[in-house]
Amino acid sequence: MDKQKIDILIATKAWQPEPWVEGLKDYEFVNKVHVWPTNADLSNVEALFVWKPLDAGVVEKLPNLKWVSSLGAGVDHLVGDEQIPAAIPITRIVDPYLTRDMTNYCIMGVMLHQRSFFQHQANQQQKVWDRIAYQNLKVGVMGLGALGGHLAEHLVALGFEVSGFSRTQKQIAGVKCYAQQDFETFLSVPDVVVNLLPVTPQTENILNKETMLKMKQGAYLINVARGNHLVEEDLIKVLNSNHLSGGLLDVFRQEPLPKKHPFWNHPKITLTPHVASVTTPASALKLLKSNIERLINREQLQHVIDRSAGY
Amino acid sequence: MDKQKIDILIATKAWQPEPWVEGLKDYEFVNKVHVWPTNADLSNVEALFVWKPLDAGVVEKLPNLKWVSSLGAGVDHLVGDEQIPAAIPITRIVDPYLTRDMTNYCIMGVMLHQRSFFQHQANQQQKVWDRIAYQNLKVGVMGLGALGGHLAEHLVALGFEVSGFSRTQKQIAGVKCYAQQDFETFLSVPDVVVNLLPVTPQTENILNKETMLKMKQGAYLINVARGNHLVEEDLIKVLNSNHLSGGLLDVFRQEPLPKKHPFWNHPKITLTPHVASVTTPASALKLLKSNIERLINREQLQHVIDRSAGY
Repeated sequence: MDKQKIDILIATKAWQPEPWVEGLKDYEFVNKVHVWPTNADLSNVEALFVWKPLDAGVVEKLPNLKWVSSLGAGVDHLVGDEQIPAAIPITRIVDPYLTRDMTNYCIMGVMLHQRSFFQHQANQQQKVWDRIAYQNLKVGVMGLGALGGHLAEHLVALGFEVSGFSRTQKQIAGVKCYAQQDFETFLSVPDVVVNLLPVTPQTENILNKETMLKMKQGAYLINVARGNHLVEEDLIKVLNSNHLSGGLLDVFRQEPLPKKHPFWNHPKITLTPHVASVTTPASALKLLKSNIERLINREQLQHVIDRSAGY
Repeated sequence: MDKQKIDILIATKAWQPEPWVEGLKDYEFVNKVHVWPTNADLSNVEALFVWKPLDAGVVEKLPNLKWVSSLGAGVDHLVGDEQIPAAIPITRIVDPYLTRDMTNYCIMGVMLHQRSFFQHQANQQQKVWDRIAYQNLKVGVMGLGALGGHLAEHLVALGFEVSGFSRTQKQIAGVKCYAQQDFETFLSVPDVVVNLLPVTPQTENILNKETMLKMKQGAYLINVARGNHLVEEDLIKVLNSNHLSGGLLDVFRQEPLPKKHPFWNHPKITLTPHVASVTTPASALKLLKSNIERLINREQLQHVIDRSAGY
């Protein structure tokens, strides 16, 4: 084995392995890329890239394993896997494009509502030419961290009236920021509410009948954070009573969303399958390559997780 | 006639004249607002506001005409109208909100394509959970004036790879700008082409079979400028041959789009009824009033068009 090149094993149960193989096989520090399952000799493999879950018995075929990486931001599928020795570092993908993609998806959602896009689609089917008027909207962003703060700034740049809510008081130019004690006031203002809060015991179920009824009559909800933020049956109620006008949902309490779930064919709900922001092979590969070089140079890997903390 | 007040004639074939009359009649520098057609004596009329087209024979009834304004951003209905003497300045509405609204609509269109939104809608109907991958897109903007330039800048800010095409060479930070002689090269790059060109003899029918076949296989077309830019039957051909993947169209050669037009139920076409950006009388009236005052004070009018350039 060339000392300056490593062998890699890719185990991607939920995704196609091709883009990862293509992206890695000609990299100057890569000797050979294996794809699980395989009968090849894996004794030279030093790096294992996984998405997800990892089959039982893989790690015992890798006597020279030095590093395991998730191919996404999530590592819950690796943290508790006892076949990975405690001394082997586990890394995850931290993708700057994730923020950009989330912001752009949310802007699309705001515009779909502002421009009555679904009504225009129905009108096209009926060959109806109806120049529906639109107004500039007030958008409220729940959560003003890396994702919510970025979205709020870009909404301001695009000319929307923007307010934001966060646990602690934030200051963002052009954004009316509300903190915890002003949650009810925050809720009453926006035409569109976008949820980008983190999941904590305080924010779980924060979108419930009581809070959604405090939103403006006709408000539109975009949930792109986590399914656990939303009491799903409460959303159905406030939609059916015409208090909220609709919802764009990308995350759900159970994913994939069960076939019998009422969201699928609710006329006021648009759903996408947890794709608002997804790590792409292209951006993940950059980080993987950088870590391959670090491994070879015996430098500290980037984005190593703390297995005892779980992230 | 009070020397400090002018008479105005409003000729709005496609719109209701009421909001314009209401907005102007009590303005301190306005004496009388006429609405075409009328038998009234129009010999004192100094300003003609038009949307569109302008009936033949109107201008000859206005011996004191000093200024013609379009009531929208477009002036193609006035540029070639030979009844307007060459010495009469023609102005157009440049509405800061028009630019904002156009940019936001186009961003929505780019995102709809990037995220395979229509496929997600079809999947929702079938209760199919398919996490369709997306890639960051290259967006090409045709026309880098007030509208196209604004869009290009905002697309850059949102992380897209942006190129632009204009008659004369432009320079916009982060945008690869192509001028006239490089049109073919420009066409071959983007995943999404957004047309925001002005209508001139040079740009009419610029989106035709030949030019669309020079776009990348699978490219998506957004036309928000004018129907006359697009050879409509050619678009159908390049969609049916799968060279282009789809189109979002807001403008058409004939508006309202005739019921028998094949665009209505083409599976790869999404259409909206000329609502990408709508001038509201409120914002246009601000500019008209400012120009009325300038006319009275014999100052240079704002947003006078160059009739030889056509915009």
